[in-house]
Amino acid sequence: MASAVLFDLDDTLYDTSLQVRLARESAVKAMVAAGLDASEEEAQEALKRVVSSAGPNFSRHYDEMLKILGVEASPRIIAAGVVAYHETKKAYLIPFPDTISTLLALRERGYKTGVVTDGVPVKQWEKLIRLGLMDFFHAVVVASDREWMKPSLRPFKEAAKELGVDAKDCVMVGDRLDKDVVGAKAAGMVAVQLAGGSSSAKHIKCEQEPDYIITRLGDLLKVMPSI
Amino acid sequence: MASAVLFDLDDTLYDTSLQVRLARESAVKAMVAAGLDASEEEAQEALKRVVSSAGPNFSRHYDEMLKILGVEASPRIIAAGVVAYHETKKAYLIPFPDTISTLLALRERGYKTGVVTDGVPVKQWEKLIRLGLMDFFHAVVVASDREWMKPSLRPFKEAAKELGVDAKDCVMVGDRLDKDVVGAKAAGMVAVQLAGGSSSAKHIKCEQEPDYIITRLGDLLKVMPSI
Repeated sequence: MASAVLFDLDDTLYDTSLQVRLARESAVKAMVAAGLDASEEEAQEALKRVVSSAGPNFSRHYDEMLKILGVEASPRIIAAGVVAYHETKKAYLIPFPDTISTLLALRERGYKTGVVTDGVPVKQWEKLIRLGLMDFFHAVVVASDREWMKPSLRPFKEAAKELGVDAKDCVMVGDRLDKDVVGAKAAGMVAVQLAGGSSSAKHIKCEQEPDYIITRLGDLLKVMPSI
Repeated sequence: MASAVLFDLDDTLYDTSLQVRLARESAVKAMVAAGLDASEEEAQEALKRVVSSAGPNFSRHYDEMLKILGVEASPRIIAAGVVAYHETKKAYLIPFPDTISTLLALRERGYKTGVVTDGVPVKQWEKLIRLGLMDFFHAVVVASDREWMKPSLRPFKEAAKELGVDAKDCVMVGDRLDKDVVGAKAAGMVAVQLAGGSSSAKHIKCEQEPDYIITRLGDLLKVMPSI
């Protein structure tokens, strides 16, 4: 019988994809309003190109975007984008409507709870703090080195160890087949895919099947008794 | 007769010293609450040491602070500090009570208005946007290179040029004798020192005397008719 439930963070405990999409839209609107000489569509397209080539954690997205648009860099316009991006990002840094009730119910039923996420440790902890979730978990493992990142077994094994449970008694819940499901299964855990929400990564093809599929986090409570 | 008024930004349009002091206090409190094994006083002292040796724009203040305290780096504790710092900083990023009314009155009286500030251009524009002041100025000059930074004459001359006025018809308002007053006087402007607020830099010794001293920004309106 399962005694612990591990969660992915992004697109599992909150709607990261929606948050980032709206934040970028908001940034582009603000930059156009601040005088950027381009249409919102052109600017949006340019920003997408920068993000897909430079990755999401690049610090000079807007400078590169202006270059692509052939517009002179203006600190006023870039600052308008930065402020709008951060304000929108913060406004949507809220748990899914059933995240807290699900975590509370799991803890009341005696399960150990943990997080297994990839990312920059301080950044992932910032999210947990701003989401109001920092006290809900018995273990939080943030994999920041390539050899530790999911689907590596290491962060899953580490989380089980920190919780003091066997991997086979752990349930891993995440949106990504290629990361959460593959890694958890290889570590000997039960894998639940959260296939709802706006996560685009949930569609990434992968041969590994999850043991269970849920479309809302709250449905986990119906599945757990049978695991 | 003066036809333009230039303003320094930090500690002139808003209370930067108060903001930064409270943000650091808030960060330390949050880190201690998150489990930092030190007293608030010890932590505050360590943070002060880091800031004074590494400068205010260093990105790893908290890591260094934990080193000084001999405590292992914890992303949870650092993230608690980062979140508290930014939340407090944002809460206190508000204009002085008389900033907006003073700017409005100057514009209504027909003065051109500008900003002459040192700093990172995007960061200074972010402040103007968050302060709600981005539309109040006919020119904003941010000096980021050492040879442009106040008390260099360059940013003052540039602001006058952008406003289309002679330097001798400009009034510069700022808290710092060594930067705002020295630079403005050398550029041929009238210098007004804002000597109130919590600015600690206003006490930096300097042989140059301002033409006028005011203790609240609103008092500028009483001084202007005689300039």
